[in-house]
Amino acid sequence: MLAATVDELSERGYAAFTVDNVAQRAGVHKTTVYRRWPDRDSLITDALADSVAAEIPMPDTGSIEDDLRALARSLVAWINSPSGRAVLAVMLSPAADLPSPPDATRHVFRDRIRRALPIVTRAATRGEIPSGTDPAELVKTLVAPIYLRVLITREPVNDETADAAATLAITAARAGLFT
Amino acid sequence: MLAATVDELSERGYAAFTVDNVAQRAGVHKTTVYRRWPDRDSLITDALADSVAAEIPMPDTGSIEDDLRALARSLVAWINSPSGRAVLAVMLSPAADLPSPPDATRHVFRDRIRRALPIVTRAATRGEIPSGTDPAELVKTLVAPIYLRVLITREPVNDETADAAATLAITAARAGLFT
Repeated sequence: MLAATVDELSERGYAAFTVDNVAQRAGVHKTTVYRRWPDRDSLITDALADSVAAEIPMPDTGSIEDDLRALARSLVAWINSPSGRAVLAVMLSPAADLPSPPDATRHVFRDRIRRALPIVTRAATRGEIPSGTDPAELVKTLVAPIYLRVLITREPVNDETADAAATLAITAARAGLFT
Repeated sequence: MLAATVDELSERGYAAFTVDNVAQRAGVHKTTVYRRWPDRDSLITDALADSVAAEIPMPDTGSIEDDLRALARSLVAWINSPSGRAVLAVMLSPAADLPSPPDATRHVFRDRIRRALPIVTRAATRGEIPSGTDPAELVKTLVAPIYLRVLITREPVNDETADAAATLAITAARAGLFT
């Protein structure tokens, strides 16, 4: 159902999205959908979080630098993919017109930070970064330069962007900026 | 004319914006507007750059840390102001629907970096940061965490956000990340 939801969003966009269409695409009756998701926005939120989690896996390379580089490179690859562009377009729909995308965006981001927690705790255990480093601040610093280029300066993002973001995040973490 | 343009955008938004309305608001004939700006998008682009330049002045405190902190705090104050919200909404209109806002956004950002150049060259002359520091990279690192919170994580931004962003940017610059 979640994959059908992302496909619907990619093809029709948020405004034209209906539970009816998703049910039809998945070959089930819409009451089956409503049994699990009370409204279209809870379905969309779950689908976005699920899609991002599948397409940007959390690495475990044994080194914080390699983990952050791998994570940033996955994010960049996802942003440059058709499904990534589609999901981002939904997440960035103007708050004024559509009340729910900001909630979905917040939800997806919280889910990302929860999943990134082990990367940070493992690195602290290995003594690579100060213990007490805030994982949320570290992850935000990692992804901020990438999103700035996509949303504000409208520059292409690539592996070089990802590696620079990883270097910035690790430099800041080692300097104790997130404790 | 530029102030009238920003007022029009704030009140009516980008989609409903017309040169006719701006001319009427400014009390001139629309041919007067067209003499200087060949189309509505060149007028909008100039108006946005002008508005941002007026509301987020470039500081010269004698120290790079204080300069970056002042600049980040001005940006946060602007984002939290009605005209800042209005200008941002125009700049962030989805690229798919409106071809020009991305150009305006790029133009405004390039203008910001050009104006920030003296902050960076003065700091390098004073020996506060390595010579050869790239001003564009420094400015992007300064503003990225602020825009991430506004656009993606949807958290409030305040002086604390601004000060953390300044600390991050100066730490990275001193570590030679922008040379």
